Amino acid sequence: MRTNLPSPQSAPLHVLGLGPGDASLLAPAALRCLKDSTVIVGYRPYIDLLPDSLLRGKQVIATGMRAEVRRVEAAVQSALNGLPTSLVCSGDPGIYALAGLTLEYLEKRGIHPDSLPLNIIPGIPALCAAAALLGAPLGHDFACVSLSDLLTPWEGIRRRLEAAFAADFVTVLYNPRSRRRTTQLAEAFALAALHLPPSTPVGIVRNAFRPRQHILISPLAACDPREADMFTLLVIGNSETRLSPGARMLTPRGYTL
Amino acid sequence: MRTNLPSPQSAPLHVLGLGPGDASLLAPAALRCLKDSTVIVGYRPYIDLLPDSLLRGKQVIATGMRAEVRRVEAAVQSALNGLPTSLVCSGDPGIYALAGLTLEYLEKRGIHPDSLPLNIIPGIPALCAAAALLGAPLGHDFACVSLSDLLTPWEGIRRRLEAAFAADFVTVLYNPRSRRRTTQLAEAFALAALHLPPSTPVGIVRNAFRPRQHILISPLAACDPREADMFTLLVIGNSETRLSPGARMLTPRGYTL
Repeated sequence: MRTNLPSPQSAPLHVLGLGPGDASLLAPAALRCLKDSTVIVGYRPYIDLLPDSLLRGKQVIATGMRAEVRRVEAAVQSALNGLPTSLVCSGDPGIYALAGLTLEYLEKRGIHPDSLPLNIIPGIPALCAAAALLGAPLGHDFACVSLSDLLTPWEGIRRRLEAAFAADFVTVLYNPRSRRRTTQLAEAFALAALHLPPSTPVGIVRNAFRPRQHILISPLAACDPREADMFTLLVIGNSETRLSPGARMLTPRGYTL
Repeated sequence: MRTNLPSPQSAPLHVLGLGPGDASLLAPAALRCLKDSTVIVGYRPYIDLLPDSLLRGKQVIATGMRAEVRRVEAAVQSALNGLPTSLVCSGDPGIYALAGLTLEYLEKRGIHPDSLPLNIIPGIPALCAAAALLGAPLGHDFACVSLSDLLTPWEGIRRRLEAAFAADFVTVLYNPRSRRRTTQLAEAFALAALHLPPSTPVGIVRNAFRPRQHILISPLAACDPREADMFTLLVIGNSETRLSPGARMLTPRGYTL
């Protein structure tokens, strides 16, 4: 069904990235959208990152894991009903977050862009937050892979991991492990070991710029998958990545000094 | 030469990302550092993105292209001299920017981290800014490759491009073309065409969130390398990327709607 009629009553839908979560890393544009919204929709742990003062007097729709479609549905419906709405994502809304699903949902429902002002506001992604804490591991070309096989067959993920290691990309791993998914990270380390020296630094960052932040840099051969959970991001160095003084992870780009 | 003595007179060195350049996307943490600094060092076009009010009364060291080492040198020296200093990068300081070169320079000069408080502040990278303007092209795994062969042999770049296309990553291209480098982007398109359908959407974003912003989405087969310059970032879709209504680029992640 395609609704071609404009909806004069619809309000803006902001799909925005909170960045890592700390207010000091939230873009003013995203803050503005949050303040201007009467409805805020998001995954409960991300909503919890927002200060109470920002939520006061607003309708907050916070849902649990795997309720992505319901979140998008609620946010779109709210905007169509004429309520300015923010759909909040952690990091950047375009990286393993809800910008794509929102476009898909609008397409599926036949809601034409002209009838719903959609505003995608970028945020500091987890990969940049983790990298800043580790030093400069993303100093050269990198690949970003989610290890979650809930939506993608493991064979496809495995193929991308192999390609990334073989071509000497720095490799960023999102969603490395959850309570239910416990085998993928060990397999990723094993694939990396086929292409990289055992001493290759691996950065393991949990809760970047959030309470209980934890940073670990470990040689690939000594990495323990149990160091990772759902709130962890990993950066596996390339063949040139090294530790620089102060235990910082550094991938040089090739400048002559 | 390694200086093991702490320098009690040294001041903090902030290596920070401005994000795309618009003040609405500058993190408060980065703004705080800029305000607290008495010296601001950076590439001239990035310094020009800052409001005059922020620069007033400060020493500004703005240099031209390819003066990366001199910028880092000036910033480190300034902090060692006791002047709080910000070294500004566009986007995120860790992605093709100066965080890595700063670590390398400190290492080379033997300046121990304890003697110079170094503060790396992440920013919204160009890839997220461009993606937000295009729709949601980074909805699944992606690889990020710089086409500049000034510091990296073209054979290595070519190998990474081939790996990324063959493994069906979405591929982000930084530094696609400059006045002197005019052949790499056409070669990248030709490599992509070996693995992807001619209709694959390619997003070409110039000056994201800056004056003279320009957004173009073109099928791979019709891409013209002359659309790109030094301030352009490209996103080549994967085999599943499509145009969604409203001319938005969408890479689905696999949700069932």
